This record gives sequence, structure tokens and C-alpha cells, in this order.
Amino acid sequence: MAKTLNVGLIGYGFMGRTHSNAYRKVSHFFDVPYRPVLKVVCGLVEAEARAFAERWGYESWCTDWRKVIDRKDIDVVDICVPNNVHAEIAVAAAKAGKMIVCEKPLALDSAQAAKMVEAVEKAKVPNIVSFNYRRVPAVTLAKRLIEEGRLGRIFHYRANFLQDWTISADVPQGGMATWRLDVKAAGSGVTGDLLAHCIDTATWHNGPITRVNAMTETFIKERKHAETGKVEPVGIDDACTFFCRFQNGSLGNFESTRYARGHKALYTFEINGEKASIRWDLHDLHRLQWFDHRDEGKLRGWRSIHVTDHGGGHPYMDKWWVPGLQIGYAETFVHQIADFLAAAAKGEPCPPTFRDALATQKVCDAVLKSAKSGKWVEVK
Amino acid sequence: MAKTLNVGLIGYGFMGRTHSNAYRKVSHFFDVPYRPVLKVVCGLVEAEARAFAERWGYESWCTDWRKVIDRKDIDVVDICVPNNVHAEIAVAAAKAGKMIVCEKPLALDSAQAAKMVEAVEKAKVPNIVSFNYRRVPAVTLAKRLIEEGRLGRIFHYRANFLQDWTISADVPQGGMATWRLDVKAAGSGVTGDLLAHCIDTATWHNGPITRVNAMTETFIKERKHAETGKVEPVGIDDACTFFCRFQNGSLGNFESTRYARGHKALYTFEINGEKASIRWDLHDLHRLQWFDHRDEGKLRGWRSIHVTDHGGGHPYMDKWWVPGLQIGYAETFVHQIADFLAAAAKGEPCPPTFRDALATQKVCDAVLKSAKSGKWVEVK
Amino acid sequence: MAKTLNVGLIGYGFMGRTHSNAYRKVSHFFDVPYRPVLKVVCGLVEAEARAFAERWGYESWCTDWRKVIDRKDIDVVDICVPNNVHAEIAVAAAKAGKMIVCEKPLALDSAQAAKMVEAVEKAKVPNIVSFNYRRVPAVTLAKRLIEEGRLGRIFHYRANFLQDWTISADVPQGGMATWRLDVKAAGSGVTGDLLAHCIDTATWHNGPITRVNAMTETFIKERKHAETGKVEPVGIDDACTFFCRFQNGSLGNFESTRYARGHKALYTFEINGEKASIRWDLHDLHRLQWFDHRDEGKLRGWRSIHVTDHGGGHPYMDKWWVPGLQIGYAETFVHQIADFLAAAAKGEPCPPTFRDALATQKVCDAVLKSAKSGKWVEVK
Amino acid sequence: MAKTLNVGLIGYGFMGRTHSNAYRKVSHFFDVPYRPVLKVVCGLVEAEARAFAERWGYESWCTDWRKVIDRKDIDVVDICVPNNVHAEIAVAAAKAGKMIVCEKPLALDSAQAAKMVEAVEKAKVPNIVSFNYRRVPAVTLAKRLIEEGRLGRIFHYRANFLQDWTISADVPQGGMATWRLDVKAAGSGVTGDLLAHCIDTATWHNGPITRVNAMTETFIKERKHAETGKVEPVGIDDACTFFCRFQNGSLGNFESTRYARGHKALYTFEINGEKASIRWDLHDLHRLQWFDHRDEGKLRGWRSIHVTDHGGGHPYMDKWWVPGLQIGYAETFVHQIADFLAAAAKGEPCPPTFRDALATQKVCDAVLKSAKSGKWVEVK
Repeated sequence: MAKTLNVGLIGYGFMGRTHSNAYRKVSHFFDVPYRPVLKVVCGLVEAEARAFAERWGYESWCTDWRKVIDRKDIDVVDICVPNNVHAEIAVAAAKAGKMIVCEKPLALDSAQAAKMVEAVEKAKVPNIVSFNYRRVPAVTLAKRLIEEGRLGRIFHYRANFLQDWTISADVPQGGMATWRLDVKAAGSGVTGDLLAHCIDTATWHNGPITRVNAMTETFIKERKHAETGKVEPVGIDDACTFFCRFQNGSLGNFESTRYARGHKALYTFEINGEKASIRWDLHDLHRLQWFDHRDEGKLRGWRSIHVTDHGGGHPYMDKWWVPGLQIGYAETFVHQIADFLAAAAKGEPCPPTFRDALATQKVCDAVLKSAKSGKWVEVK
Repeated sequence: MAKTLNVGLIGYGFMGRTHSNAYRKVSHFFDVPYRPVLKVVCGLVEAEARAFAERWGYESWCTDWRKVIDRKDIDVVDICVPNNVHAEIAVAAAKAGKMIVCEKPLALDSAQAAKMVEAVEKAKVPNIVSFNYRRVPAVTLAKRLIEEGRLGRIFHYRANFLQDWTISADVPQGGMATWRLDVKAAGSGVTGDLLAHCIDTATWHNGPITRVNAMTETFIKERKHAETGKVEPVGIDDACTFFCRFQNGSLGNFESTRYARGHKALYTFEINGEKASIRWDLHDLHRLQWFDHRDEGKLRGWRSIHVTDHGGGHPYMDKWWVPGLQIGYAETFVHQIADFLAAAAKGEPCPPTFRDALATQKVCDAVLKSAKSGKWVEVK
Repeated sequence: MAKTLNVGLIGYGFMGRTHSNAYRKVSHFFDVPYRPVLKVVCGLVEAEARAFAERWGYESWCTDWRKVIDRKDIDVVDICVPNNVHAEIAVAAAKAGKMIVCEKPLALDSAQAAKMVEAVEKAKVPNIVSFNYRRVPAVTLAKRLIEEGRLGRIFHYRANFLQDWTISADVPQGGMATWRLDVKAAGSGVTGDLLAHCIDTATWHNGPITRVNAMTETFIKERKHAETGKVEPVGIDDACTFFCRFQNGSLGNFESTRYARGHKALYTFEINGEKASIRWDLHDLHRLQWFDHRDEGKLRGWRSIHVTDHGGGHPYMDKWWVPGLQIGYAETFVHQIADFLAAAAKGEPCPPTFRDALATQKVCDAVLKSAKSGKWVEVK
Repeated sequence: MAKTLNVGLIGYGFMGRTHSNAYRKVSHFFDVPYRPVLKVVCGLVEAEARAFAERWGYESWCTDWRKVIDRKDIDVVDICVPNNVHAEIAVAAAKAGKMIVCEKPLALDSAQAAKMVEAVEKAKVPNIVSFNYRRVPAVTLAKRLIEEGRLGRIFHYRANFLQDWTISADVPQGGMATWRLDVKAAGSGVTGDLLAHCIDTATWHNGPITRVNAMTETFIKERKHAETGKVEPVGIDDACTFFCRFQNGSLGNFESTRYARGHKALYTFEINGEKASIRWDLHDLHRLQWFDHRDEGKLRGWRSIHVTDHGGGHPYMDKWWVPGLQIGYAETFVHQIADFLAAAAKGEPCPPTFRDALATQKVCDAVLKSAKSGKWVEVK
């Protein structure tokens, strides 16, 4: 039997649920070195923390995250709170020698992120940042195809993340459900929330981004604050588009918005190489589109690969059901925890590590800086 | 310069237009041995025949088809009238030594069709029946792939032809626009009009059908007649589905209806072979779907082939524009005429010939007979 | 807190996993009256039963299903074994007053199924048969649209279930992994395994089927038996197609095969009504296709509904994540258990009940009988 | 009968063919005030001009474009030569009082284009620039939907034009087939060739673009010249991406490349409005994607509109075949000529006029200037 690993979860929102589900399921499907034990969940409102604990089977609950870190029996601290609180918790957890799972983006900015990296690397604690889309099987398959050199020289990388949930001026900012619209809690708008995902995948797939040129917009300039009830200026970017250069010479084009009517979570990317191209789209996450110029001329076409096969190289899928039957969004977190546990057993960080996430944060910072200045900005 | 070939068109309806357009265009795109000259169009209403002649550039018009056949200068008689008149015209034209292009289905039934075959074969005149979908480039490509043996043993052939234009009980039967609902003019409903297309393609692709078992239905039992104004019983089949055996051991499943809300002309087929499968759909006629089990496991998927390439084996397409730019429905008739002219120059019939169309008619007859008897019927 | 409900699972194969996963997850997402407790798993090979128990957290394991039924503390018996054992277990469980969850098809034939129905109805125990596709949110949504009368008079119901996993002659019959190819264990081939799903959904959506006319084929006539190693005749149907009449006057067309190269689990259905049509496909199970003739003419088109919204009527989805994020195959079993638990709390059977499944079995029997006789068969 | 209009075509390449086809067909399908007569075709190589004349039925041919303009009997001069010759011909034709049809982009730069506008406006001759994609029925339908105010406030306009035909370093520059790679003949690369189309449609749909920020790249720095045989530096942009601001406050994102493996002519656009969104794609040009937030919640989805209906508002389609049957790329030129002839009969220019095309040219100039400077550039 696997050893147990005691988990302390901080934050019981949307991400708290996805992580709890992953801890609960991982050992049913993956042969992991540790079996996670849900020790404690921590959140601001006690009644809610308690209800969450009861629903998900946490042994206890609390409202002060420092108590989680003080507990000797906690092995992993899992941070699922708004972005502005990540740094303080993570640094404290690292000092206490805890393994850390942290939601993305890592921090409000790269200065903060750098301190977090310093903390986990000094403490040598296993760590991971939850850019979960890397572990959609189709996205992981794309990575393998690139690594195998099947695309040849890369010319273009293109990614979008389109949503439509903030079009109404009645959506407030701040508070539990809409902190992502409050610049104080979120740090930025779509750049940190959505483009950070795109940048993480892109740099994993295609290497470092060296320079960016960006434009942002805030379509709705004022929103009521959910907690104060006051109408306040909106400080986040509602939309952001940027183009860039990758170190390998390819061009990038990225766009994100929460004002694209008809799209709930349309994260798409496309990579164009000399020999082959890849497309993917979160709305049908179980499919990968593949075009191979080496195919016989009259039979060339985009292949729609239903990434559900076993044995033949569809990442993670042999752990689930039978070929043809799709998994969903939530399973990406199970894959993430499975990989994290494997790394943790070796005392290693698991990619995307805090250091990887710092690199993404630097791109985000450069994007926001460029949007303000209207000029190209180097990523340093 | 190519020699000229004098055309006499009988019928100025929908098909009269598609054929006229093809005659007009064919020599601009194809190197054909004959340049068609539009000599005469014939139709019931003189004013309409004249207007048609003027629009399409026919030199003359008339209202009695026998005059077309009597003209010595007419080389090709093109029959675009309702099904119940095909036989008489075709037999007369053959006797007069005319080449014949005939709309599908060939006749009201196979007895009539057999006489037509006898006539053209005795007269040795070039002939073709306008099952135009064979010459959609994607459909022709499918044929080539099958001929090259790429599918291996065939297990299944599946075809549908779904429309929705007769759902309203207010659609009349009979007359110029709706003769297809009048059993006296059409002979049958969807079986002769739509399934005949499916059967023609299927037997071309997959060989003879040997036995059928069918069900038909007439959803709306009475309709006003467009000419008499009287409400009369509907004699056609509104819907027909049948399964069958092919000589090669594969199973067939065919269905057609004019009561499939949302489909205007959804002719689809799918062929499942041991090694590969093919799908096609008239609503996106420029695409062919191809699945090849010999592809590397993790990259297997249905390929959506945009059948617009040049040089590499996309039939007919090098005659048109540039890769990536699609052609439409009407071009299938241009291909048909191009092939017909090439055959005619050699004095040969062009597939699908009257004889080929007789075989299709026999399947249609067996289908209708089976639907009546509720039993398997052999195709003889 | 919810009361507990003690589960005894019989069978640790593919379905044993899907059911275990559902019991484990249901109370995290749904407010259910019972919290399932995994008491015991039973299977033929002790080491495997034990491993399964450890992986999924069953408190105990055994190899004799009678012991499960004899245990007083077991509330629910869940039957996930090959079809030929369903009846004996179910009847015994009913006699012991256990609630029953049974995998589909209910039995080898309708005679057997009738006895099972008698047993559960006499014992008045809550029961359900695991036709899980009813509870794909898109499929449930289809049912609601039909119930709301949005389609008007129904003309056609069409369903396919296409697979390709038995094309190789090297696939054996019998044994743990391939008992579905052994007629003694499975009762039939695609008819009971795949078409039973289609029939269950179809009759739920569109009412009773009254008459059928079918064709079956066994493409590979002999296969080695996985247990005996001997080559034996194949007794199952590899492919089956049938057309039928529904009581409401609409026509049905059904086909299933395991020889459709390129399709792993392509369960599709389409319903054509006077006013609207619906399509769905298991390979993209989170989408529903909807065409509404009442839409403004120039804007009519098939809508691809990403069935992931909350609040607005996408069944079950408000229990999961956020709009735009898809669930997978396994969640259908969670929905099934949630609904079963709600019914159980009221002491009621949950549809599809044993009685519902008997009706499906009768259609399957008629289909197989028709395929043998080559004639229409009434469903009684 | 319509009056005749005498056409002189200059250039017998790809565009010469599309225009000739349009002149030939227009009066068969549209009720136009003029029937075009193909008087003369002019091109550099006499044998080719003659062969073209014979194939398309031009009465004569020549090799000096000035002779076309000198002919009194020519009513329309149609310019289908490389971009660097447009201005000289157009200005001379305007002075001679000819109507002008000119291929896009209008000129090498906006200074040249401004002179051309001055010439046609001074001469008051009907004129049009062949941005043919405006007249894809789906694209025209999009315009109507926007004009009807159905989208509400516009947030985003996004367009791509992706090709892959110049990836090989063996493709030469210059000459008849590849002048588009020669900066002297083409003026620019994808910006003038492909993005000009996107910009024309975008400003038609969404109003003026006020500021741009661009990046270009030339992936292959040297290519052999098709005429001289010498390897020369490549002066064109192989790829160009830019973002921009529209006057109406919306954001634009545009990208074009000839290095996107797998795409032949993937011109796509998407417009996101407050209430609805539209998508379109040249690879399936007969479809429009439409999402309407006003649809009932549970039935919201992207509609795939097969733009082939009659009567109900699908632009141009009632002139062609029957609903469900698609037209292709070439028909866009027929629509263009039909509209041009209608305008010409009134002595008016037909949009997109030379003046409209000048506005597009200014955006292209700004894009190229921004790409060089790395800064935002105002469009003036």
C-alpha cells in the first residue's frame, strides 16, 4: 500500500473543489507513491469551510491559514485562494518545509513570484503551479509530437482564450465569486487569469518568449464592488492581445478577452511547423487536430484525433476507461496530482514548478508593461 | 479548335439550367473534343421556352420534342423532363441516331428502362444518365481509393439522402414545380428521386446489390394537385429505408426522406473497410473524410480532406482555380459533360450509361416491391 | 448528514470500476439522501477482488456472490458481471430484499428478464438498470425538449452504434476481457451490447417500438476461446441493422456493428420532428445539435449546444464546474447513482427500471428473431 | 434584351480567368442591364493571349494594353495584371473615359492609389476594386446582420488569412506564377495580397481602423528569381500580424502568413458583439456561424447556417440552384460583376470603389510602417 500524504487545503472555492476531487480520485486510477489524506480545509467563513469539509471528507476545518502551516502533520499545503494571498502563504509554507501546490498565476507580479521561487528552492520542497491544461491528454500529446521533432522548424504559435461572462455591466467586482474582476485581488484581468495559461503552454511547447508588444482594453470602466457595494473604477484588463517573438525564431500571436459572446472557455492554440501543424481547443478538449505534410498528397487533411486510445501513446488515457470514451476537464487535475505525487516521492519539484511559473509571470509583466507604453518590451 | 456538337435540350426546369450551364462552361475549363453549340431548347410553354433560350443563348426554341429529334443538325438530345416522358423521347432519339444525355432516374420502372437500353445499344449511340454526384471530386476520389484496394475487405456501406421540403401539407403535387410528388409523373417518391442517386454511387463504389428488404411511408396521404386544384391521394413514397446485401458480402443500409427537418440535401455515405473508412456529405461536398487504420496509432484520426488540390490526385480540380478554393454543385455537371464529350468522340457510352442506370432501376424496383410485400426481394 | 447505504458490488471489471467511481463521487457533487459505503466487492479471482477492494476502498472482498446477498448489512447489490449471470443474482437479491443496480442488458432474453421483473416487483425493492447514456446531460436535455413538445409530430428516429474493436480475427472470444464475443456469456452480440442502449434511449425519447425487421451478420465465423484455447464457432451477431415502426407512427432505423473502422464508440441518434430536429453523438457527448424551423429563415442552422451551462436548464451541469468546461463519460454513472439514491429514499424504482429494461429486451428478442426469419416481427 | 457592354481584359492569369468566367455567366443567372461582350484580351505573350482568347471566346487579343484603351468600342477595362502596373493602366483608362474593374490591392502604396482615385473621380467613370470576398453570400449576410444592429456594441474583430504555399525554399520569386513573392511586382507580401482582403471586409463590416501596431517577418531571406535565375534577397513580408483600434471602439487582431502548414486559403473572421457573434471561414465559404445570446438559455449554441436558402434573405442565392446546394469561390466574381453592371447602368461606382480601396491601402501602409518602426501608427 502507498504511504499517506496529509493535505491541507487553503481556499474552498472553484479551485478548492477541483483539487479536492483530484486528491480523492487519484489513487483509484493511478499507481501513486502516496495516498492523499484530506486533513484540513481552511477558508474565511467558518460555516462554509465546515460544509466543504463535510462534503469532501476533510477531517477538520479552520479559518486561519497559519494554523494549517503550523500543523506538524500536514505534508502538503495546497493554495487555492485569490492571487494576492499566494505569496505570503507560499513563503510561509516553504519555510515550514511543506510541499506546495499553488494555483495560477503564481503571484501578482514577477517580483513577488521571484521571492516565492527563492523560498521553495531554499527550502527544497516539492512544488507545482496548477497550470492544469498542460495535462489535458491532447495537449500533452502535442508536446510529445513537438519533442519528437515532427513539426520541423516552427513558424507560428497562436493562442486565444475567449470568454463572455463579464459582458453585462451588472457583474460586480470583488468578493468570493468575482474577485477576478478586482485588480487588488487578481493583480490583472485576462492577462494573469487566462493568458497565463496560454503562455505556460506556449513556452512549454515552443520555448521562451523574448519580446512582446501588447494592447489591452477595459470595456466597462466602473463596476460595483461586491463587498462594499460602492461603484469603483475597474482596474483590470478586460481584453489583451499581444504578438511576440520566441527564442526559436517563430512568431506568436495571443489574445484573450471576456467579451467574446458565444465562448465560455475557448482556449485554443495552433502551432505551424515546416512539416506539420497542430490545433487544439478546450471546448472539445478530448480531440487534437493534426496536419502532416508528409502524408500522401491526395490524402492530406487535418486529422481529428479522438485522444482516448490506450497503449498507443495517448497520454494518461490507459488509466481511465476504454477507447472512444472521453474524460473531462476535472481529470486534468487528477493527472497533475498524480505527477506531483510521483515527483514528491523523489523530493523533486514537478513542472510547471514555481520557477517555470515565474518565467510565465515575467511574460505577463512584460505584456502589461507593453500595453501601457505602446512599445515592444523585452522579457527579462 | 474543337469540332462543334449541336445540342437540343428538352426541358427547361431546374435540370435544364444545370445542363445548359455545363454546356456553356465546359470548354473554358476542359480540353474537350467537341465544343457544344446550344441549338434548341424545347418545353411545354412557348413563352418560357423562348425566355430560357434567350437567357442561355439557345439559337431557337420549340414546344414539341419530336421536332428536336427530327432536326438533322442536332447531335445530342438532352432529356430534362419528368421521369414519365424519358422513355418515349429516348427511344425516339436513339432511333434517330442521336447521342443522348438523360436525367435520372432513367425511367418509371425497369421494364421501361430495359427498352431504353435496348434502343441505345441497338443504335450504338453514346449515352449517359445524369447521376451527377459520381463526379463530385470527393466522390470520384473515394472511387479511386477503393479501386486502389486501400480499404481492404468491405464490411459496410451506409447512405442517407435527407430533405425537408415537403413537410408542410400545403405543398401541392403535380405541375412544373412539384411533379416529383405526383406518382404519375415521377413513378415513385424518394426512391427514384433520391435513393437512385445513393444506389448509383453505392454500386459504382461497392459492386452489385443482390437482395433488399425495405420499408416505405407516405406521411401526408392527400395533397392538392397543382394543375387540377383537386385534393388527390398521394401515390409516392415520402420516406424509404432499406437494408441489403452486396455481392461482395458487405451489408448496406440506405435511407431517404423528405421529412428530415434541418436537412436540405443531406446526401451522405460511409464505407467501412477492414483497413480504412470513407465518409462524405453533400452539404460540404468539397470535403472527404478518410480514416486509415495503417496510420501510426497515436495519430490515427478522421482526416478532413479539402478536395481542392492540383496535380496530386484530386479529380478534376486542376482544371479549376487554385488549391483551397472550392467549387460547388453545378460543376459536377461540367465534369459529366466533359467526360461525356470525351466518350462521344470515341463513339462510346459514358458511365453511368443507360445500362448502368437500368441496374439501379432494378434495385429501386426491388426496394418498392419489398416495401409492399414486407419481405426480402432478390434483385434480378 | 446523509444516512449511509451499504453497497455490495458483484463484478470488478470495466463496469465495476465505473460504478465504484460513481459511488465514491456522488455525495461530493450531489445532495443525496444516502452516502454510499463500499462494503464488499465480489469476483471470481480472489487476488483480483482484493486488489480492486484496496484500490477503491471496499472494506472487504469475496469470491462467492451468495455471500454478498446473505450479508444483512448490505443494502444495495450492484450487478456488474456478464449477462448470463444477471438473472440468478438479481432474483436472489430481490428475495433477500436488497435494492438492485444491474448492468445492461438486463438478461439473456426477455423470458429471463420477465422473471427478474417479477422478483423485484414482488419484493418491492428499488431497482435500476444501467443504461447510463440516458444521463448524458445532452441526452437528458433532448428528452426535455421532446417532452416540451418542441419537435411537433415525429417522423424519424435514427440511431447507430459503431465500433471497430473486433475486426481482427485474432481477437478471442470468452474470458474476462472478451466475454462479449461469447454467445453463452453475452446472449447476443451488438444487439444486446450496443443496440440495447439505442433502444432504451429511443423508447424513452419516442415511445414504444411495435414492429421490427432486421438483418444480422457474423463476419468472422470462428474465434479461439480465451479460456479453452480452442477455435470455436462464433455465436454472436457482429453487426445488426433493423428498421421499425414506433407506436406514434414514426419510422426507426437502427444499426450497430463492431466492424466500422474509425469508430470506437460512435453512438449517434437523430430525431426529426415537424418543427425541429435533434442530433447527438457519443464521441462529443457534451454537445447537442439542435435545428429549429421556427428560427428566422435567414438564420436557421444547426446549433451546436455546448451542454455545460448552469441554471438555464442543462441537466445535472450546475453540480459540476463552470460553464464551458466539459464532463466525460464516467459522470453519467454519477448522475445515475444520484437519481437512484433519490428514488431509493422514497422506496421507489428508478428509471430505467427492470420493467423498462424488459421492454427493451423484448425489442432485442424481436430483432434477433426477425434477423433469423427474414420477416417483420411484432414486439410483444 | 439587355444592352451590350464591351470588355477589354488586361491580364490572362488566374484573375483573368475568374473575371472572364464571371462575364460569361452573369447574364445567365442575373437580370443585368448589360450583357458583357468579350472584345479583347491583352497580355505579354502573344501565343498565350491568343490561346486565352480562343478558350474564353474573346474576339481578339493583343500584347499592348494601350491599344485596349485606345479602342473606342471598349466600355470596360478590366485590370488583372500584377500590382505594380495597376496605376498606369487605370489612370490612362480613366482619362479615356472607360469604366474600370481593377484587381486588388489597388496599388503599390496609398500615394499611387490616391492618384488613381483622383483619376476615376475626375473622369466620373464607374469603378470597382475586386475584393471579391465581400460577395460570398455568407459574408454579405454577415454585413446585413451587422447593419440590422443585431450584434449590439462591437468588442472584437478578428481575422486571419493563412496559407502554406511558400514554405519550400525552392519556390522562386518573380515571373508569371510567382510574382507575388517579388516585392517590385507586388509591393508587399501577405499584407497587400491577403490582409488587404481582411481589411476590406473588416472596415466594411466594422468601420474605419484608426491605429495599428504590427510585426512582419520574412522567413526565407533569399529566393531565385524566376526570370533572371539569380538568387536575390526577398523583399516581401512572408507573415504579418497586427492589432488595431477601430473608430467604434472595438479591438482588432489580424494575422496573415504563407507559412501555416495545412491551410491553403484559410481566410477567417470573427466579430464579437454584445448580443451576438459571427464567424466565417473561406474553406467552407457557404456556411456562416452565428451565435445569438438572445436565444433561450438552454438552447444557445453556434448555428452553422448553410447559406443556400432562397427568398428568406440569403444574399444572391435565389439566383442559383435549390436550397442545400452550394456554390463555390468563382461565383463571388459573378456577384461582383452583376452588382458592378447595375451600378454602371446608373453611372455610379460600385463598392468597394477605388476610394474604398484607397482606405484599405492606407491601413496596409500603416501596417508596414508600424512593422518597420515597432511603434503604433495612426491611419491617415
